[in-house]
Amino acid sequence: MNKPRIKVGIVGGTGYTGVELLRLLAQHPDVDLAAITSRTEAGMKVAQMFPSLRGRVDLAFSEPSLDVLGACDVVFFATPHGVAMKQTPELIARGVKVIDLGADFRLKDLAAFEKWYGMPHSCPEVLEESVYGLPEVNREAIRTARVIGNPGCYPTAVQLGFLPLLKAGLIDTARLVADAKSGVSGAGRKAEVHTLFAEAGESFKAYGVNGHRHLPEIAQGLAGMTPEKIGLTFVPHLLPMIRGIHATLYGTLVKDAGDLQALYESTYAGEPFVDVMPPGSTPETRSVKGANTCRIAIYRPQGGDTVVVLSVIDNLVKGAAGQAVQNMNLMCGLPETAGLTQIALLP
Amino acid sequence: MNKPRIKVGIVGGTGYTGVELLRLLAQHPDVDLAAITSRTEAGMKVAQMFPSLRGRVDLAFSEPSLDVLGACDVVFFATPHGVAMKQTPELIARGVKVIDLGADFRLKDLAAFEKWYGMPHSCPEVLEESVYGLPEVNREAIRTARVIGNPGCYPTAVQLGFLPLLKAGLIDTARLVADAKSGVSGAGRKAEVHTLFAEAGESFKAYGVNGHRHLPEIAQGLAGMTPEKIGLTFVPHLLPMIRGIHATLYGTLVKDAGDLQALYESTYAGEPFVDVMPPGSTPETRSVKGANTCRIAIYRPQGGDTVVVLSVIDNLVKGAAGQAVQNMNLMCGLPETAGLTQIALLP
Amino acid sequence: MNKPRIKVGIVGGTGYTGVELLRLLAQHPDVDLAAITSRTEAGMKVAQMFPSLRGRVDLAFSEPSLDVLGACDVVFFATPHGVAMKQTPELIARGVKVIDLGADFRLKDLAAFEKWYGMPHSCPEVLEESVYGLPEVNREAIRTARVIGNPGCYPTAVQLGFLPLLKAGLIDTARLVADAKSGVSGAGRKAEVHTLFAEAGESFKAYGVNGHRHLPEIAQGLAGMTPEKIGLTFVPHLLPMIRGIHATLYGTLVKDAGDLQALYESTYAGEPFVDVMPPGSTPETRSVKGANTCRIAIYRPQGGDTVVVLSVIDNLVKGAAGQAVQNMNLMCGLPETAGLTQIALLP
Amino acid sequence: MNKPRIKVGIVGGTGYTGVELLRLLAQHPDVDLAAITSRTEAGMKVAQMFPSLRGRVDLAFSEPSLDVLGACDVVFFATPHGVAMKQTPELIARGVKVIDLGADFRLKDLAAFEKWYGMPHSCPEVLEESVYGLPEVNREAIRTARVIGNPGCYPTAVQLGFLPLLKAGLIDTARLVADAKSGVSGAGRKAEVHTLFAEAGESFKAYGVNGHRHLPEIAQGLAGMTPEKIGLTFVPHLLPMIRGIHATLYGTLVKDAGDLQALYESTYAGEPFVDVMPPGSTPETRSVKGANTCRIAIYRPQGGDTVVVLSVIDNLVKGAAGQAVQNMNLMCGLPETAGLTQIALLP
Repeated sequence: MNKPRIKVGIVGGTGYTGVELLRLLAQHPDVDLAAITSRTEAGMKVAQMFPSLRGRVDLAFSEPSLDVLGACDVVFFATPHGVAMKQTPELIARGVKVIDLGADFRLKDLAAFEKWYGMPHSCPEVLEESVYGLPEVNREAIRTARVIGNPGCYPTAVQLGFLPLLKAGLIDTARLVADAKSGVSGAGRKAEVHTLFAEAGESFKAYGVNGHRHLPEIAQGLAGMTPEKIGLTFVPHLLPMIRGIHATLYGTLVKDAGDLQALYESTYAGEPFVDVMPPGSTPETRSVKGANTCRIAIYRPQGGDTVVVLSVIDNLVKGAAGQAVQNMNLMCGLPETAGLTQIALLP
Repeated sequence: MNKPRIKVGIVGGTGYTGVELLRLLAQHPDVDLAAITSRTEAGMKVAQMFPSLRGRVDLAFSEPSLDVLGACDVVFFATPHGVAMKQTPELIARGVKVIDLGADFRLKDLAAFEKWYGMPHSCPEVLEESVYGLPEVNREAIRTARVIGNPGCYPTAVQLGFLPLLKAGLIDTARLVADAKSGVSGAGRKAEVHTLFAEAGESFKAYGVNGHRHLPEIAQGLAGMTPEKIGLTFVPHLLPMIRGIHATLYGTLVKDAGDLQALYESTYAGEPFVDVMPPGSTPETRSVKGANTCRIAIYRPQGGDTVVVLSVIDNLVKGAAGQAVQNMNLMCGLPETAGLTQIALLP
Repeated sequence: MNKPRIKVGIVGGTGYTGVELLRLLAQHPDVDLAAITSRTEAGMKVAQMFPSLRGRVDLAFSEPSLDVLGACDVVFFATPHGVAMKQTPELIARGVKVIDLGADFRLKDLAAFEKWYGMPHSCPEVLEESVYGLPEVNREAIRTARVIGNPGCYPTAVQLGFLPLLKAGLIDTARLVADAKSGVSGAGRKAEVHTLFAEAGESFKAYGVNGHRHLPEIAQGLAGMTPEKIGLTFVPHLLPMIRGIHATLYGTLVKDAGDLQALYESTYAGEPFVDVMPPGSTPETRSVKGANTCRIAIYRPQGGDTVVVLSVIDNLVKGAAGQAVQNMNLMCGLPETAGLTQIALLP
Repeated sequence: MNKPRIKVGIVGGTGYTGVELLRLLAQHPDVDLAAITSRTEAGMKVAQMFPSLRGRVDLAFSEPSLDVLGACDVVFFATPHGVAMKQTPELIARGVKVIDLGADFRLKDLAAFEKWYGMPHSCPEVLEESVYGLPEVNREAIRTARVIGNPGCYPTAVQLGFLPLLKAGLIDTARLVADAKSGVSGAGRKAEVHTLFAEAGESFKAYGVNGHRHLPEIAQGLAGMTPEKIGLTFVPHLLPMIRGIHATLYGTLVKDAGDLQALYESTYAGEPFVDVMPPGSTPETRSVKGANTCRIAIYRPQGGDTVVVLSVIDNLVKGAAGQAVQNMNLMCGLPETAGLTQIALLP
């Protein structure tokens, strides 16, 4: 009962992953929110920007300060890429654990990082020791990590969907197709024309078909699941809704598949946040809205050699802030599900 | 630490108030779900109908049974009107507390009930002892009640909005206007053409302008706040969104108003679930999505003698299931906020 | 059959009223599109920005040029306030008719214009001769006008709704209430946070309660319908949908109302774009989506002395571009309905 | 100038394809609406059910009558499967041209029809002479047909997307993937729980993964474009929006592809209703909302051997009523685009 409480700081809390972190951490039984920083909004109460937090989060945004952040147990970065890598070395030097919800510690390959994000990496040695925070793949490494690259939203849904097939060596790794759809909140809270209500509403389109930053991240993750070379076609689409990702995955069987349902169920048997649904299910994104859950269904239509996997998450929870809290729990020796037991909001 | 746990039954759990009750009760620290009944779905796992509950609610729907329900501490009715009044007498005879989320115990006037609901009331004596479950008005009576008529969604938003003005005798009670807007979930989960996505989406309309069942309920509630006669024009509208009610209330000042903001703040100081926002605020329905909160702002445009009140709730939470749990907490001597501390889901 | 064709220019075509003008004018039987200007997008094909126009509008945006615009018969301004008033004097000097969809020629009172729009008016003498382009009120003046101030979207819905009551002197003009709701496209195509999909979706709120620029415009219009002094409370709200305005209007009868339905029907008999619906109707905004129609229903709930009017338009059509084309037709001696016969898109 | 007018009847006009037919036909320059039948709604004015048609369509629903329908030039069936095949033989015997928007004349293979639609076909000989109404494939046969099986919505988008690749023999026909997404109006106007606003809104899911009725229709159409055997995986999904289909198609190149953009542009060069967009485009469904257009983009991501085609239509227009009118135009010797020149409604 004398469990120490975790002192947490958030850098860059004015976006959707920031407010989602606040929602989860404010309800976490073992966490004290120590600071949330924003250069542009310093001085403003967080609950003024996000009235959903009125009466629950009394903090005001503050200027980023190494003194304040350096006194935390854990610091989350909910910032555009390029910010976390600059501040992380000083923080870990002070014994702070860092979880970056941005992209600075996701790609292990420096050249890939520079190509896709258009800037050199400022701390390659920290990148090297950092751990990719997908607990279903890297749980033990996460427990002892100092720096976590929290996975992107699409990569979480796609990797959890393909994992059992790749581990079992059942499909042609050279011809993977991930047709993925995301709610608009995945684009963040920046003022941009293409995500206006009157632009993104009542419409649907693909984007980034020739190349999206999550492509190398997914490919890297899938490569870790198989000795074979990965060939992946990834087409993201924008859904006229706020939260949710649905990945529809296609693979071609290269050997006798056996019982795919059993394979998925056994792979994820002890996982608290992956739910393999019964045969014939079609997971809805709303079934995970606000929850840290990935629901998956597996199909072999008409008994052919094409396998179809349906994988849904809430992009802001299991695809961002929830997974970050799950990583924090692992890093701090808390129960993995602490503060993550919210039931999805349906309808 | 030896706090007794509350054994709960739900009658009619296949609608939206039913699944919302399940969401809240499954996360309530002091509740055990004992039974959920549905004649049509008996035998089906609740989580099969509502996958958001997978892994969290293991119950199956069962046939309604007096033996089972009679062994509960509290029974919630999430049924169409006419069901609860038939079963309540037997349940309270066995010592069960009853909370009806339908309309059977809302209108104290028998003639009004019969006029608006088209059926005679089957237990007028129980109706007489029942308490209208708006805690901000009837908290003490609720604590000792055996039967609660849980308020309708519109009535909750409208009554909480007008209350301070009426109690203070500031406005002309003969000319109240409530222009109210509700998300589609307020119409329930019945298969009907007018609430189809392609009918209710991307459109907005009024309905029930000549008379809506919530009109007499609101008028009854307002009448209890003032010795003056109530004249109310109530126009409900259907919003192209799922959850949320926004009531825009208009009144005419009949005396010096003083500081309306201070009046509202002092009236609701101490209320755990009513939030008076700062001057100039415009409460968004999303700021209470999934939360048991009513947020209110008060205006006197251009300093004239018209007062405008903005009042928002989540129709399924403070407007239905959350308020029902709040009533249960009061009836059972639990902390009023137990199981009701979820932060709204934003965005 | 030798009807001369109308040569049309559009200034500022990158917003929603601009693309809507293009949609209507490209299908107008008597119009040739001569130019569409945009400083920022000069050189870009219009159909590249708005692919809905591919194959139908071949124009590219051009730099604003007095030579080009001065050679048009009619020039529409779909620009922020302050632009049209600077260019209009030169255009009318060259014999061009000007229709401003912005606010420069709406308010006749200079002080009011300066107060609400924060700038002095640059051509008061043109303002004085300009005509407020609400054809149901000013049809004859519009026919001979050189400059039209095209009404705002809210003002169109509210004025057409109140007009018969005010003309007949039936209601208390000192206590008018207009509770109005608009789709998000009314806010334009600017990149702003509050109109992002993830901000405006699945939510509803009021705004501008203490004062909105359409308030003086509506009050001015209503004042022209009655000798009495106008007292108006106007509360706009933001709907989670793209197109449509719904005004719910409240008035108090001050004399025997007679047959209100007959009053409305006779007032608007002969009007091609105002549809008085049968008693008991609740007009849906989608019933006018894409059409230049205002649909109205009139109520006297419970036979009391409060009158409720429901008035719907498409904010981009009868509330902006369609009404502008209607004005052009009148100014150019074309049939008033030319190019405006599209049936609403339902569902 | 003495062009004869076409007398048209509609059987079953109470659904979305019915009202869309009415919208298009009421604006068609060469058509007279003679009758619209509905057993359940006989006597009701069409414009009472669909107020968007007020003032534009004066017809009332009538009982189906062979006398009335038999006097038409063209009869459209907007009915569930099984209705058209019963009435078509008598109508064509009277010289009436029949266009079935249902499924009775889509599948040429009787066994396939019976398997997927669960009933025997009642007029196999008419089925045999009927023509599948995809003008881009069967234009000449349509001109002289007496009976048209109007294509399904998904099949239209998918076939037009794959056609150039299959005709050119460029891709592996045994491994085609069509990941398709449809707005909710595709499910029709029936009262059903799964298409309620509060069920289908703010969510996304796949359905029919193990087999959808459009699968054999698409496979039949694709088989007609190539001598090779077709292997197709078709996964439909439900979008939280009203109108629009987006098909994302995947194929594997089996030979040197050459210039795919040029292939698509030349294939569709003279087609009035297929728009091949410039390289790098991502067609939005809203760009065809209300228009009879299919917009297509073609990709070869990262220069690999996977081809991705994006194909969008409005499911109610090019996917149903618009294509039916296009077929009528062809059958009646009218210009193919007559009555089909509406520009899409954007935003």
